Amino acid sequence: MKRIEKRSGTAFRVAKGQYLTVIDPEGGQVSDLVCYSADDVGEVLSNGRTFDYEETIRLGKGNRLWSNRSHPMLTIVEDSCECHDFLLTPCSEATFEHFYPDKPVHRGCFGNLAEALQPYGIGEDAIPTAFNVFMNVETEGGTVAVKPPLSKAGDRIVLRAEMDLIVGLTACSAYASNGGSFKPIDYQVGADHDDR
Amino acid sequence: MKRIEKRSGTAFRVAKGQYLTVIDPEGGQVSDLVCYSADDVGEVLSNGRTFDYEETIRLGKGNRLWSNRSHPMLTIVEDSCECHDFLLTPCSEATFEHFYPDKPVHRGCFGNLAEALQPYGIGEDAIPTAFNVFMNVETEGGTVAVKPPLSKAGDRIVLRAEMDLIVGLTACSAYASNGGSFKPIDYQVGADHDDR
Repeated sequence: MKRIEKRSGTAFRVAKGQYLTVIDPEGGQVSDLVCYSADDVGEVLSNGRTFDYEETIRLGKGNRLWSNRSHPMLTIVEDSCECHDFLLTPCSEATFEHFYPDKPVHRGCFGNLAEALQPYGIGEDAIPTAFNVFMNVETEGGTVAVKPPLSKAGDRIVLRAEMDLIVGLTACSAYASNGGSFKPIDYQVGADHDDR
Repeated sequence: MKRIEKRSGTAFRVAKGQYLTVIDPEGGQVSDLVCYSADDVGEVLSNGRTFDYEETIRLGKGNRLWSNRSHPMLTIVEDSCECHDFLLTPCSEATFEHFYPDKPVHRGCFGNLAEALQPYGIGEDAIPTAFNVFMNVETEGGTVAVKPPLSKAGDRIVLRAEMDLIVGLTACSAYASNGGSFKPIDYQVGADHDDR
């Protein structure tokens, strides 16, 4: 098990067939996930293609996350929280200035992902709308409302890689998405996963 | 006024301050719109940034469409239809094979946009989730359902460019998004627009 400290991020490889487990160790925290084909980083996670093929904006167990080239990248094989977001982009300097003008600006998940992905040759402009694990976004009547996550301590999601991937993953830095409390995120990559 | 023939697409420049009018001449047709900064095509339309800043997934008059770099690209200044989609990606060979396995495959809006944008140095992988003008997508309970457009003959949307843009625009090729009837789309670019 590895830990992503609060308000930070990382990137790593996940081979086809391996399982990525993302855990909220304390509860109430969000983790932004982006991914790219390891063979060609021009192939990237796409919320629009995913909404098209999965025919839902509420992704959970059994759903797949698709690329801009219409290939499955990850399949959700386990999900103890059942509340994630795929509508909103990673928090950034610009979103801090916009939403929290009276608070210190942070580079956010966007800056953390950009630094973590740079060694893989992935630039800032290539960071897509993230799959925001444990993020609780209501869209009643179309209005977007970011609510505190529903995740409890130990909640987790397990995703199987459907191709060789480079994954970017964060412990979210924004105030609204984790209820104002910055917390770590744990993850592991392995050939198996414990069914629960 | 220019016409985009059924199941085709085009691309053109719109200068900052100019107005782009998109018209459904017959009613019940969808037009996929994507855009890029003319100064640097790495800056591209982003549904996630737009949902973040506009705080709605139902865009209409007064809303702005934002870039991946957190800049406004277009402002909707007029909207007689009030039903558009910003969740789904342009139809493509892959979506035709997926959704209409018994029908002839078409390159779709994706292929039409790729050809139209290629002279501007914009590749296929850079085609984002489109702003789908007049597209009627219901998301009741999270489930995505593509319904016939609500647009009547002559319905239009007017957008003001907030930066110099390259715009890609189509007359949609998919069966579901236009109720199975392929129709043209009209558009114009100008310094003014008629208030209605």
